[in-house]
Amino acid sequence: MATIADIAVSGAINLLTAFIFLLAFAILRLQPFNDRVYFPKWYLKGLRSSPSRSGAFVRRVVNLDFRSYIRFLNWMPEALNMPEPELIDHAGLDSAVYLRIYLMGLKIFVPITFLAWAILVPVNYTNNALEAVKMVANVTASDIDKLSISNIPLKSQRFWTHIVMAYAFTFWTCYVLLREYEKVASMRLQFLSSERRRPDQFTVLVRNVPPDPDESVSELVEHFFLVNHPDHYLTQQVVCNANKLASLVKYKKKMKNWLDYYHLKFSRNQSQKPQMKTGFLGLWGGKVDAIDHHISVIEKLSKEIEEERKRVLKDPKSIMPAAFVSFKTRWGAAVCAQTQQSRNPTLWLTEWAPEPRDVYWQNLAIPYVALTVRRLIIGVAFFFLTFFFMIPIASVQALASIEGIEKRAPFLKSVIEIKFIKSVIQGFLPGIALKLFLIFLPTILMIMSKFEGFISLSSLERRSATRYYIFLIINVFLGSILTGAAFEQLNSFIKQSANEIPKTIGVAVPMKATFFITYIMVDGWAGIAGEVLMLKPLVLYHLKNFFLVKTEKDREEAMNPGSLGFHTGEPRIQLYFLLGLVYSTVTPVLLPFIIIFFAFAFVVFRHQIINVYNQQYESGAAFWPDVHGRVITALVISQLALMGLMSTKEAAQSTPFLIALPVLTIWFHRFCNGRHKSAFVKYPLQEAMMKDTLERARDPNFNLKAYLQSAYVHPVFKGDNEDDEDDEDNLLSGKMETESVLVPTKRQSRRNTPVPSKMSGGSSPSLPEEVKSGEP
Amino acid sequence: MATIADIAVSGAINLLTAFIFLLAFAILRLQPFNDRVYFPKWYLKGLRSSPSRSGAFVRRVVNLDFRSYIRFLNWMPEALNMPEPELIDHAGLDSAVYLRIYLMGLKIFVPITFLAWAILVPVNYTNNALEAVKMVANVTASDIDKLSISNIPLKSQRFWTHIVMAYAFTFWTCYVLLREYEKVASMRLQFLSSERRRPDQFTVLVRNVPPDPDESVSELVEHFFLVNHPDHYLTQQVVCNANKLASLVKYKKKMKNWLDYYHLKFSRNQSQKPQMKTGFLGLWGGKVDAIDHHISVIEKLSKEIEEERKRVLKDPKSIMPAAFVSFKTRWGAAVCAQTQQSRNPTLWLTEWAPEPRDVYWQNLAIPYVALTVRRLIIGVAFFFLTFFFMIPIASVQALASIEGIEKRAPFLKSVIEIKFIKSVIQGFLPGIALKLFLIFLPTILMIMSKFEGFISLSSLERRSATRYYIFLIINVFLGSILTGAAFEQLNSFIKQSANEIPKTIGVAVPMKATFFITYIMVDGWAGIAGEVLMLKPLVLYHLKNFFLVKTEKDREEAMNPGSLGFHTGEPRIQLYFLLGLVYSTVTPVLLPFIIIFFAFAFVVFRHQIINVYNQQYESGAAFWPDVHGRVITALVISQLALMGLMSTKEAAQSTPFLIALPVLTIWFHRFCNGRHKSAFVKYPLQEAMMKDTLERARDPNFNLKAYLQSAYVHPVFKGDNEDDEDDEDNLLSGKMETESVLVPTKRQSRRNTPVPSKMSGGSSPSLPEEVKSGEP
Repeated sequence: MATIADIAVSGAINLLTAFIFLLAFAILRLQPFNDRVYFPKWYLKGLRSSPSRSGAFVRRVVNLDFRSYIRFLNWMPEALNMPEPELIDHAGLDSAVYLRIYLMGLKIFVPITFLAWAILVPVNYTNNALEAVKMVANVTASDIDKLSISNIPLKSQRFWTHIVMAYAFTFWTCYVLLREYEKVASMRLQFLSSERRRPDQFTVLVRNVPPDPDESVSELVEHFFLVNHPDHYLTQQVVCNANKLASLVKYKKKMKNWLDYYHLKFSRNQSQKPQMKTGFLGLWGGKVDAIDHHISVIEKLSKEIEEERKRVLKDPKSIMPAAFVSFKTRWGAAVCAQTQQSRNPTLWLTEWAPEPRDVYWQNLAIPYVALTVRRLIIGVAFFFLTFFFMIPIASVQALASIEGIEKRAPFLKSVIEIKFIKSVIQGFLPGIALKLFLIFLPTILMIMSKFEGFISLSSLERRSATRYYIFLIINVFLGSILTGAAFEQLNSFIKQSANEIPKTIGVAVPMKATFFITYIMVDGWAGIAGEVLMLKPLVLYHLKNFFLVKTEKDREEAMNPGSLGFHTGEPRIQLYFLLGLVYSTVTPVLLPFIIIFFAFAFVVFRHQIINVYNQQYESGAAFWPDVHGRVITALVISQLALMGLMSTKEAAQSTPFLIALPVLTIWFHRFCNGRHKSAFVKYPLQEAMMKDTLERARDPNFNLKAYLQSAYVHPVFKGDNEDDEDDEDNLLSGKMETESVLVPTKRQSRRNTPVPSKMSGGSSPSLPEEVKSGEP
Repeated sequence: MATIADIAVSGAINLLTAFIFLLAFAILRLQPFNDRVYFPKWYLKGLRSSPSRSGAFVRRVVNLDFRSYIRFLNWMPEALNMPEPELIDHAGLDSAVYLRIYLMGLKIFVPITFLAWAILVPVNYTNNALEAVKMVANVTASDIDKLSISNIPLKSQRFWTHIVMAYAFTFWTCYVLLREYEKVASMRLQFLSSERRRPDQFTVLVRNVPPDPDESVSELVEHFFLVNHPDHYLTQQVVCNANKLASLVKYKKKMKNWLDYYHLKFSRNQSQKPQMKTGFLGLWGGKVDAIDHHISVIEKLSKEIEEERKRVLKDPKSIMPAAFVSFKTRWGAAVCAQTQQSRNPTLWLTEWAPEPRDVYWQNLAIPYVALTVRRLIIGVAFFFLTFFFMIPIASVQALASIEGIEKRAPFLKSVIEIKFIKSVIQGFLPGIALKLFLIFLPTILMIMSKFEGFISLSSLERRSATRYYIFLIINVFLGSILTGAAFEQLNSFIKQSANEIPKTIGVAVPMKATFFITYIMVDGWAGIAGEVLMLKPLVLYHLKNFFLVKTEKDREEAMNPGSLGFHTGEPRIQLYFLLGLVYSTVTPVLLPFIIIFFAFAFVVFRHQIINVYNQQYESGAAFWPDVHGRVITALVISQLALMGLMSTKEAAQSTPFLIALPVLTIWFHRFCNGRHKSAFVKYPLQEAMMKDTLERARDPNFNLKAYLQSAYVHPVFKGDNEDDEDDEDNLLSGKMETESVLVPTKRQSRRNTPVPSKMSGGSSPSLPEEVKSGEP
């Protein structure tokens, strides 16, 4: 068990790490040559361009104004300055609501922490059960345990305090959850109704069009909707299986990149023509001239692409039995999306079309019948992934304990017995080990979700997030508690039965408080500080900039702003909710660490969202019901754990009082979902009708058909000539962006962002930004 | 433990009881004076009237044709004769599909029984584990156990047979389930599309209309739907809170009945004016003239009713925020029922209106917000009902065992040690005790469902059925297995943990086979035979006939055909599915008893449905997904029990093979629901459009508005003058009936039914049916 000293060492290390990261960030972000790494969002919006040529070369690369370094934490208030409505305009509703998760964490835990420290900590501390136990058995207990529930003797009447507190915390959490659900639901409806015309408002995705020997899919769809939605049907766009074409285009793009690279290499060193091997990964095979080789490959690919493009458009086999059907009114689309079309409920399946940039094109080609089977396969695979992943974690954690190391590597004994190293190992390593395991997981989960056949990026991310959360609960939370404890309590834990689990968890929870405190510091403090530093994009950008960039457009491509990554970020936040709620009644010492995490992460991610991330899609906060549901899950787990703990404390009469809590919580969850969930899955007809009427009055001659005609064309067909292929994604998303972003706030938004020229004391209030920089 | 001899005694008793019931039924039903008890359905349909006056008085009361008695089981083939499509026309789809549940039981269990007897019984019998155990410990084992899995020694390789059989049985059950789901779904769609115009096809029930200070509910609803469904809205009918009025009307009807009774009494005995006491229940208070008293009460009530009726129609407080909204087309109604109307998902809630006679008017007045709270209360109440009901069952069963009686009443020892009495007690009493407990339960559950606020009789019954099934599983199935076993195995069972439960059940299952066999015989054989005899309606009818009936109309009211009682009948059938599936691999001896139950019950209920029951509503087999789900539940329970049993048999390597079964079964269930469930909850737009188009072509000038105007008026407002109140229900349902029943088959249907005149050998082939009989 770690003592307060261990925690202090770990805390110091992590605070130092975080401080170093923040300092590095503060310095790096002020350097003009990093500008595109730390402010890509503004470049993408066209509100910022490369640093000007005026002034010395050095000033373009390094910021020499020392005054700006003094206020190195200035980005924090700046990040907080932008008001929420402007943030929604700037970064979209998804990002703004994502930040509200952190805010909700603060809203829940700040009052809970105050209450817990004011009431529970004194109640726990003024006992001496642990001292008594120490006398009898040779149990180790750290000072932190003195503040926790472990310090209260069996059968004490003081446990009533904890029960009352559990009620208070549950009530408060539910209250905050309800308010947030209400708020987010109204924000979503506000967002949807204030939004300008978007193709997905009029469009429905139809899947599983039945085969017809006499008609093509396109005709069939047209006829079906002309018959069944005669007053509303407008047009349709059949889905092609262009997966092969898309991969060819992607490959060609990669080849072009290489060609550029070799061209650049040749231009720098004209004496030697660049050569390459043709074999596998360039490792063997005959040497050829790299430039010529790539040119010929690209030519070949161009031909293939042209052929494939023609084939896809003509071959009836490449037409999938799915279509994007557009309606004359939002009302018509809302009706079609919410109703069943045909007798056979697996045919003519309709659902809201995702935003065009949110569509995951590969999966549109999956026939519906395969989906249920895929779901089963993934379900089983996920089960095995979750439960067999536990083995390495358990063994690493056993290794990372002092005893484990001493047992397996006795020769290290003298080294690790040094007090400082011992503290490092105990306070630092378990957290790191866990963290490493979790790095590769989201990718695997994302692949699983893709295999399962979801058709939009947003639903893929939501699904992955759910899986990741389940994984975190089982492997990180329960895994750390139970296997860790299993090595301490040995045999007693092995032959456990299902209804003993709350007890087992309840007993182990207070023991693991120090472990989770270190985990929070490693993952939640240093990790978040690492997030703001963006080391990987920084290095990659400069590598690309050095090797590949020739024009301004190349430089723009070299920027990799990334996005929020809902599927990894949100479950991680939820783990903190879980820890906070579980420990709120048991070990309130942990709560301040959670609060620091939420506050720090809120500032950091607000900064990142304003300056860096560029969301791939906008789902209108469709993820909120998931967020809500997971906090409820955490609440129920915390109640069960408390119940288990209480029953081992022989406070038996408490169980009936505690059993009401999960019942009420689950009922509350159902109540909330009944009240608010439909705002996230349905589109009320009243809204639709209102917007239709408004639009008809405002813009009676708008040619909707022309507007919708090509909205849902597969991205590879967007460009007319081949050389534009690379830009299509950007083009499309750029188009979408300008449509969904309001213009008037641009000027104001900019005031809030740290353009370097402004930071340097107003010496050059307006640099000529249109001048382009030339890179070496 | 009961031995084969006990079973035989119990079997003989039950067979005898069943035979006596059938004989009594055969005799009673042939008596013309019982005609209205055993063939009320035909009277209600107007296809049969009271026995004619021609012939002697005796012949009108007693059937003297002895030939008809010889063929006393003739009703069985007659019941089977009517083909299914005609049955649907005759009794509705609900009844026809209800019969399919029994048929499904036969389809599932006949092949399973053959397979089990061909393979499992020999495998079990050719062992001698039980003999070996008997030698060692003093364990009692009956001969039946020799045919069960208990006879196989530990770690035997023979258990593979059981595992393979478990797979075969699961596969077969799922196959039958899938086929039945398909069939019933197509029957439902067929039924809905072949049906003629019905008000509920065009009508949607809107609840939670928000209050508006400026408009009445009626205006508000009209405006809302004119705006949001401009092309489809037709008319609306606001719901009034007429609960008080309805109860007044009901009370008046009761008083009128009493008045009739006293009139009759007076007319028979003119010497003495009937008198009564005015106090509570007529037990005390001053004596008054009963006729005058009732006349004055009725007059007072009439005035009150008139006032209440006016108040309800005028007072805005009695107008509920709910309305039946009708549309011009089925398409419009389908769209409105399936979509969300307003931003706030708890306002303007739309759902398909139930059939007018299916509406449960009392609950329409409940505001929506109260519903979630009511649901929670009922959930908790049901939990307590389920788990505290176990105590009496357990104690009675302990009492009903020989050991229990001897322990508690030693003086009876000499009596019950007599072999025959002992057999009776062991074979008969436990079943009876259980049966008695279950008689009052459905009423309680129905009251719970009503409190929960469902708005149609069909959904009330479905909900009650679900609750009843859960109750049966926990208290009858698990309760019998575990508490019974708890008294046998004492301490070892008390401190059980959750994941041991499959083991506990698995071990106890084979021991309880004999108990369940007796239960099946009591409940499934004799009980069903009692059902066909209809003793209670018979007695009630003759009492009423004797005391109250004056006119033909009175006699019609005295008939009480009853209805199927889905909420009690279906869960009871499901218990047999559960028993059959659980014992299929463990004790195949039980299976033939199940098959006899299904076959016998099928015949009996087919007869009852054809001749007796008069369904209150027609839900179009909306209950099938529930039926399907419960068979799946039974299947999963049987798999878990087998898994538990196997793990105690130390056939440990079998668990991985068995664990796949519930996973696959649950996946199969989800697959089936995805494929077919929507046929039971949604109405496809394609269908709606087709029917609309057809109807528009066939009947372009139909005045739909007039047709729908008064379809959903509260029954108490139906009659224009007060005296008709009593008939309104009949009037309404009669109207509905003639609308939904096809005419041409009437003649044919009649041929199949045993009209007494026909039975008596064709001596009077056509009695003048229009002549009315006069009763004394």
